[in-house]
Amino acid sequence: MTTDLSKTGIRMSRLTGVRAIMHDIRQSQAASPSAPWTNLSPGNPVILPEVEAMWRAHTRAVADSKEFGEIVCRYGESQGYPPLLDAVVDLFNKKYGWGITQDNVLITPGSQSSLFAAANCFCGVNAKGQLRKLLLPLSPDYTGYDGICLDEEALVSVPPDIEIIDAHTFKYGVDFSKLHIDATTGAVMFSRPCNPSGNVIRTDEVEKIIALARAHDVPVFIDAAYGPPFPNLAFTPIDPFRGDNVVYSMSLSKAGLPGERIGIAVGPSRYLDVMRAFLTNAVIHSSRFGQAIVARAIASGELVKVSQAVIGPYYRKKFELMRRLMAESMPAIDWYLHKFEGALFAWLWLKDLPITDLELYNEIKKEGVFVVPGSFFFPGTDARWKHRSECLRISLTAADEEITKGVAAIARVAAKLYNKASNTARIAAG
Amino acid sequence: MTTDLSKTGIRMSRLTGVRAIMHDIRQSQAASPSAPWTNLSPGNPVILPEVEAMWRAHTRAVADSKEFGEIVCRYGESQGYPPLLDAVVDLFNKKYGWGITQDNVLITPGSQSSLFAAANCFCGVNAKGQLRKLLLPLSPDYTGYDGICLDEEALVSVPPDIEIIDAHTFKYGVDFSKLHIDATTGAVMFSRPCNPSGNVIRTDEVEKIIALARAHDVPVFIDAAYGPPFPNLAFTPIDPFRGDNVVYSMSLSKAGLPGERIGIAVGPSRYLDVMRAFLTNAVIHSSRFGQAIVARAIASGELVKVSQAVIGPYYRKKFELMRRLMAESMPAIDWYLHKFEGALFAWLWLKDLPITDLELYNEIKKEGVFVVPGSFFFPGTDARWKHRSECLRISLTAADEEITKGVAAIARVAAKLYNKASNTARIAAG
Repeated sequence: MTTDLSKTGIRMSRLTGVRAIMHDIRQSQAASPSAPWTNLSPGNPVILPEVEAMWRAHTRAVADSKEFGEIVCRYGESQGYPPLLDAVVDLFNKKYGWGITQDNVLITPGSQSSLFAAANCFCGVNAKGQLRKLLLPLSPDYTGYDGICLDEEALVSVPPDIEIIDAHTFKYGVDFSKLHIDATTGAVMFSRPCNPSGNVIRTDEVEKIIALARAHDVPVFIDAAYGPPFPNLAFTPIDPFRGDNVVYSMSLSKAGLPGERIGIAVGPSRYLDVMRAFLTNAVIHSSRFGQAIVARAIASGELVKVSQAVIGPYYRKKFELMRRLMAESMPAIDWYLHKFEGALFAWLWLKDLPITDLELYNEIKKEGVFVVPGSFFFPGTDARWKHRSECLRISLTAADEEITKGVAAIARVAAKLYNKASNTARIAAG
Repeated sequence: MTTDLSKTGIRMSRLTGVRAIMHDIRQSQAASPSAPWTNLSPGNPVILPEVEAMWRAHTRAVADSKEFGEIVCRYGESQGYPPLLDAVVDLFNKKYGWGITQDNVLITPGSQSSLFAAANCFCGVNAKGQLRKLLLPLSPDYTGYDGICLDEEALVSVPPDIEIIDAHTFKYGVDFSKLHIDATTGAVMFSRPCNPSGNVIRTDEVEKIIALARAHDVPVFIDAAYGPPFPNLAFTPIDPFRGDNVVYSMSLSKAGLPGERIGIAVGPSRYLDVMRAFLTNAVIHSSRFGQAIVARAIASGELVKVSQAVIGPYYRKKFELMRRLMAESMPAIDWYLHKFEGALFAWLWLKDLPITDLELYNEIKKEGVFVVPGSFFFPGTDARWKHRSECLRISLTAADEEITKGVAAIARVAAKLYNKASNTARIAAG
């Protein structure tokens, strides 16, 4: 029997491309469980001992506290656990001098659900029957933005400017000649630092986007899942953004707590109230245990400190290793790593790649190494645009030996492919 | 500034009636904080010492376990935490002999989110442009079913048969003459035991609903938030339902864990796979700490035992107290309590009530007592149907003294209202 699904059901039960790759990786591993697979695909952060110890200590404290029953054995406020709201208000007022109140904070079951609520409250068909779009101002960006739109047609994204910085480094910029924010725009959304590219959209670019959006009363959602104040995987100094049309969206997932699904949105209450009501109807409220341990870790100052002292340096070192290994082993072709400004991935561009990124994924898989093909991160852009299928996302969450093995495999495959391609070109020319 | 919302945003940012009442209650309490308010409105379960102790012990065990990092510091499977899936499979196979596998289980961030996914995947506009509806076969039912439909027009509900059992007891039945399941039906949903009425739809009625739905390949969602095997607040012996078009939906909220938002759906994988994909895109996965403590409490047998020995008897005694107090104090009018077959509310019907239930709510509030007007539980039925505005939901989660005070207030108000009405009638007749 095939059950008749709604359009929403058809759309939402399709998993985005990256999830299809994850499925392929699981199947490959299951088919050859004893093979020495090296997995450079995951976005799952490494469990760092200092980080785990912090969360474990707070868990014990909650378990022993007299508030335990009030925390886990009661329904909570849909806006969030009050001590967590207080801790966030304090942090932003003391660290950044923002002067916000609890009304400017919304806790959600992960930042994905917060952006899901935003995408569908502010984008989609409005009361006048007009389709208002979710605009990604710089593609590539987080693949999950495609999955959160209930309306198939709602996503639009803008190809970037590409700046070559040196022989093997490039950086994306916003191409304002192609960015159009107008009455058909429902919301603007981008990750900063960016998953997958590690790019940090420049501050003047962000300011310009916000100003363009403000002219049409369009909310701008800055997804700071990798940004300050935690996990602060930004290696160029940046601050959170505020504005009367800006929501700053944080996550605890890369601060060692992905299992607990905690998102924190800070912004104007006129946006947060709408999102809160949506989420109240859909999921009632966020789980409270996670909120309680996060409230303690923020209020004590530990979370910001551990992010700065432990989490950031860990991934920065991994990237340095990868860059060094690539410089040593890649063939003499036009390869570029995106300038590493944040997040936990390296983003490799193989210019004039003779095959597609999906084919490249398979070639590298034959070497026992998993990476993520880049094209999934360019939803809503022209499929004929060559750069779209010349990139790979390589996770920095692996052990040094695995990164070493992975880079060697990528270099071998690249050497073979370009060699073959240039032979073919020679033969064709000859 | 008023931001332009999508139709989804307009619809979902409207809170359902009960939440408006909860807002009024909070405001009334804030306006007179020293007044001796008696609150018989909440659905928040009492924190029972044995139940709290169970969850606290498992929290300590998780905090001390070597799996702690794997549980809370990692992303998880969107289907659920594997040891919890195993525990559910074991429970249903051992206790009920079902022979299910992990493919038949889906863990969600609360059962509300599971039903939200179901309502919007199976109901709403389909690929052919036809609106398929969420059918509530017996109204009144849980008010949250209204809030989960993204499509304003998607909900339809069927008024019940009313059976008078004795002088002050009645029971709802399914009126099959009015129940039409056909190609316009996307899914059927009902709570059993029922919030708000305490009704348990009879087993033969459930079987007939399932058969009617099967003829059109329509899934039936049985919301067992109060049902067996936990919290098992069913005071008429019932078992979980299975079938090739049936999803049995459970919740941990009334088993003392509302703060953790854990829902468990058991049913055919062809439905669960669709819901899982929807939720993966929207929220990634459920929080893991709660899943871990629930896995332990199910696997050890404690959860089923505590439900049976502690939670059930507690609310049963509360209801007996309320029934006795009503019998002693209510005026000589046609008042009826719904037969208490489960859940944690008394459902009072004041036949020929001379004012509306909303007005009655206000009159009782003047006596310092909060209850919930019944009309919110009848979405999608004809507003002119008198019974709709003659009922109240009274929570059994209060202390005995509060129940005593509350019943006295209701009895006083009822005496005054009916007396006044009969005087008016006499004057009019005279």
